Amino acid sequence: MRTHTCNNLNVENVDQHVKLCGWVQNIRVLSDTLVFVQLRDSYGSVQLLAEQTKMSCFSEQKELLEQLNTDSLIEVAGTVVRRPEEMIKGSTQAGEIELLVDKVKPGEETRLAHRYLDLRRPELQNNIRVRSKTSMAIRQFMDDNGFVDIETPMLFKSTPEGAREFLVPTRVGAGHCYALPQSPQQFKQMLMAAGFDRYYQIARCFRDEDLRADRQPEFTQVDVEMSFIKKEDIQGVMERMVQHVWRTIKSVEITVPFPRMSFAEATSRYGSDKPDTRFDLEITQVPEIALDQHTVAEVLVIPNGANIFSTKEMAPFVDLIRNSQSNNESRLTTVHKINETGASGVSKASLLSRYLVHNQDTQQQQQQQQNQLKEILNSVSANPGDLMFVSERSVYVTPANTTLGRVRTLVSKLLQEKGQLDIPKDKYCFMWVEDFPLFTREVDDANGRLSATHHPFTAPVEKDLPLLYKSPEKVHGQHYDLVLNGVELGGGSIRVHDPAVQTYIFESILKLAPVIKASFDHLVTALGHGCPPHGGIALGLDRLVAILTESPSLRDVIAFPKSANGRDLFMHSPSVAAAVQLSEYGLKVLETSE
Amino acid sequence: MRTHTCNNLNVENVDQHVKLCGWVQNIRVLSDTLVFVQLRDSYGSVQLLAEQTKMSCFSEQKELLEQLNTDSLIEVAGTVVRRPEEMIKGSTQAGEIELLVDKVKPGEETRLAHRYLDLRRPELQNNIRVRSKTSMAIRQFMDDNGFVDIETPMLFKSTPEGAREFLVPTRVGAGHCYALPQSPQQFKQMLMAAGFDRYYQIARCFRDEDLRADRQPEFTQVDVEMSFIKKEDIQGVMERMVQHVWRTIKSVEITVPFPRMSFAEATSRYGSDKPDTRFDLEITQVPEIALDQHTVAEVLVIPNGANIFSTKEMAPFVDLIRNSQSNNESRLTTVHKINETGASGVSKASLLSRYLVHNQDTQQQQQQQQNQLKEILNSVSANPGDLMFVSERSVYVTPANTTLGRVRTLVSKLLQEKGQLDIPKDKYCFMWVEDFPLFTREVDDANGRLSATHHPFTAPVEKDLPLLYKSPEKVHGQHYDLVLNGVELGGGSIRVHDPAVQTYIFESILKLAPVIKASFDHLVTALGHGCPPHGGIALGLDRLVAILTESPSLRDVIAFPKSANGRDLFMHSPSVAAAVQLSEYGLKVLETSE
Repeated sequence: MRTHTCNNLNVENVDQHVKLCGWVQNIRVLSDTLVFVQLRDSYGSVQLLAEQTKMSCFSEQKELLEQLNTDSLIEVAGTVVRRPEEMIKGSTQAGEIELLVDKVKPGEETRLAHRYLDLRRPELQNNIRVRSKTSMAIRQFMDDNGFVDIETPMLFKSTPEGAREFLVPTRVGAGHCYALPQSPQQFKQMLMAAGFDRYYQIARCFRDEDLRADRQPEFTQVDVEMSFIKKEDIQGVMERMVQHVWRTIKSVEITVPFPRMSFAEATSRYGSDKPDTRFDLEITQVPEIALDQHTVAEVLVIPNGANIFSTKEMAPFVDLIRNSQSNNESRLTTVHKINETGASGVSKASLLSRYLVHNQDTQQQQQQQQNQLKEILNSVSANPGDLMFVSERSVYVTPANTTLGRVRTLVSKLLQEKGQLDIPKDKYCFMWVEDFPLFTREVDDANGRLSATHHPFTAPVEKDLPLLYKSPEKVHGQHYDLVLNGVELGGGSIRVHDPAVQTYIFESILKLAPVIKASFDHLVTALGHGCPPHGGIALGLDRLVAILTESPSLRDVIAFPKSANGRDLFMHSPSVAAAVQLSEYGLKVLETSE
Repeated sequence: MRTHTCNNLNVENVDQHVKLCGWVQNIRVLSDTLVFVQLRDSYGSVQLLAEQTKMSCFSEQKELLEQLNTDSLIEVAGTVVRRPEEMIKGSTQAGEIELLVDKVKPGEETRLAHRYLDLRRPELQNNIRVRSKTSMAIRQFMDDNGFVDIETPMLFKSTPEGAREFLVPTRVGAGHCYALPQSPQQFKQMLMAAGFDRYYQIARCFRDEDLRADRQPEFTQVDVEMSFIKKEDIQGVMERMVQHVWRTIKSVEITVPFPRMSFAEATSRYGSDKPDTRFDLEITQVPEIALDQHTVAEVLVIPNGANIFSTKEMAPFVDLIRNSQSNNESRLTTVHKINETGASGVSKASLLSRYLVHNQDTQQQQQQQQNQLKEILNSVSANPGDLMFVSERSVYVTPANTTLGRVRTLVSKLLQEKGQLDIPKDKYCFMWVEDFPLFTREVDDANGRLSATHHPFTAPVEKDLPLLYKSPEKVHGQHYDLVLNGVELGGGSIRVHDPAVQTYIFESILKLAPVIKASFDHLVTALGHGCPPHGGIALGLDRLVAILTESPSLRDVIAFPKSANGRDLFMHSPSVAAAVQLSEYGLKVLETSE
């Protein structure tokens, strides 16, 4: 976001175009044509100069500046100029120069607080208009293909386990609440039971995330469900829909069908269930060095990586590895620079050292180790000058992102920044990831409890159905994720439509508490009344539009987003409800002591 | 809903086709092709017979019947048949007959509880599909006309007075709540300030109505706002939109522009701010008989009404009049049958008697009264055989529906039932009602407090602007309602865009409490930053679709409606939130003693 900090600009930077970020220390509007702002960051401060004759859009920028308060966050771009001799302040280096501003952008918080001004920026105007055109293109396609747009309730049922759902108190009785839906899942299945055959909706959904998570509490999804179909049918519809959207919005022709890849292949080759296949850098399984049958051992080789990255530049990798080990994504991951004679770090406490012959007392043993190492390096095509990551993880839990998958993503970013990897902007690698395990172990243990990988309504793949009753952990689900350039656009599944199977999954596999199981009774009953085989999908509209508009943040494609901690800084929401309002609903605020 | 009650069917009705309503007493499925149901109402019981060979759709109907429990409400239609001699039960009349059913419709509650089965009915399938086509036609029109579809937040700010808004507790802090929006009003005005120029959205809105009110807590509106326009511009756009919808859905060509009528004219001629102009029956003001200048006296004449309605049939009028008097809609309303010599009831405590010469002692006085009466009857064209309603109300409050307006609507219904008034199904009388008073007195008093007739953001008509500061009660607003066949499809206004005027209205006219005024600060601030003149409208989509599908209830055009008391009988919502869930939000249920 910035090219310099406030302390490292000096006369040598004069005439350079730079970007700074910081807090407003004070603003002085000297005249209708001249504004001074003192900008401060953690390192120092610089005087900014906004002058009508020297910038375009001066009046808009001046209006923006006048909205700012002391300590408002801003980003500025401009040209470094020498201050008039008589105004140079003594000691600080910045005293000799100032910044002739050509663009001021208030920081996120400030911009959200004056959203109607921020929305006047051409980028946001364009994003919101593209969003409208995208919705319309989707609707046009769905309508042309016989889908019925059906609105489902926002005032939904609260579920006993509903940790992530917002409650809506009602006056029906004290403590009686609706909940805001996390998705229209149950309603759309009911619509299939009702015989609507092809349903879609661009639906608002809600999730009461942890306040730390930088997610929007409300989001929009393109929600689709179809009857009497197989997986391939809905995938085909969605491919043509995406094709229609790209054609309409980007004038780009997307090739269909999209490639299919199993979850197992995606996680082993790319270390991710949403692989970015715009570049190679594949991961290799190396069973030869696995400790035992409970372990997966994997290698990621970065060609020429040892030459590209200095030891200092590798710090982010070390951080990433440390985090992923503490998350139990991997047990141990080590990094090695490949050289002419072997690899660095082999003798240290590294994975490789564990697998190689330990004693190096004799020359024969040293030679044996050398040969073993060479064999491994050959098998993964690691050559001198390459960087090699080696990682081991449990066979019992395959995380959506393995450590090497995360390393791969990070490496690709850093390579792009260094100009060592070129990914054309208009390269769109769509794919379907499928054949997920239907159930996931909750802990890293062969006997761990099973939970639904996606949701409990996903049907098993037909050939795995017999396994459901003996080895449910081996059952694959008829779930499919639509992935684009390493981003999950959405996912869906063929649903269970046999009430006996649904009940077995609830009771015998997921072992749902009776009160939770009871909350799905209406669904099981509906399945029992001639509900056709059906399946569907949901795509995140916010994310889709962010990709189409190349926006870095979802907040840039939402007209009135909430800030990171769920606040509307413009409307000043949420706000404190009066006791009398709460009492209407038979509620009161808990005493602190409670 | 029914032609008979269960007690008044007997052998004389054999071969007649009848409709009954009642509760299921018991169900016996005798075979795959034969079901017996005992139906009970408040008067008696009848045996129903559903036989495969004698009805179409037997299997669907059987499935429906099997869903029923004892005491489920149903409506049935069928043919009365004589029971086999040997099965006639002794004493009750109904014992000699039974009903061979051709159609069973579960009652509202039962149908909502099994909504997915009810939605299979061709009528509901059609309604929901027409709704989808209607939304699409609207979107197509708006998109073609340069409107940008912008999603505004569902998690809105709770307002201090928010009596009708649902709260959504958050984890930001105990008692910190969002509110669900009653409309996107403030957001769409901000979008105009942000320069979007033409906005639309098919938006979900929420209203926490009294549980007695048979309204849906969530509803959908077509929400529109435009910049740099006058009233006529947005009316023109909406007229063409409606035209497009009727063309698409009904293949009917609607004539535009729609007639305009002032609020004053609508209420005085039709006794309603949403007049049904498909038929005449106009109300006449008769200032000659008004008691004083604080009183409006009005007459409604029903040609030939005294002959059409028997005294018994006039009971609903008497009820209506009694209710409207207790609502203070009218002070006194009386009914008179016109005869050759004058009118009935004149001598009793009636309005007419108050205006006529009281003493009838002399023949001269009698003659004088007779003449006065004749003069009045002539002036309102009341002829022998007519029915005449006379009513007086306060000049200070003009209700949206006057007593005579309600009588007019009731009369039109009864006349239609009697075949005395023919309104073709495809007659669509659209109109704009406008020039509403900007403010309404809260009580029937020349000095009563003023409140905004529609909402506090509506702009005064330009020529009335000077009156705002001297006689605000005389100011007309730039508000307009779109009315079709006596139903309000929606309304809108040109908004205040001058922050000084908006502040004056908040402070000096509405005298808002500071905390409430403060909750609109962001709006006033935005108006101050170059907000263009703007205005908009909102149409009720549920009602629009109900009219297009000729549905008697809004519930018939909503896939998953709530029951009359706000319950989802299918999902069993709302449900009681666990104390631990509430405590996540720093809330607890009030003790009964509190």
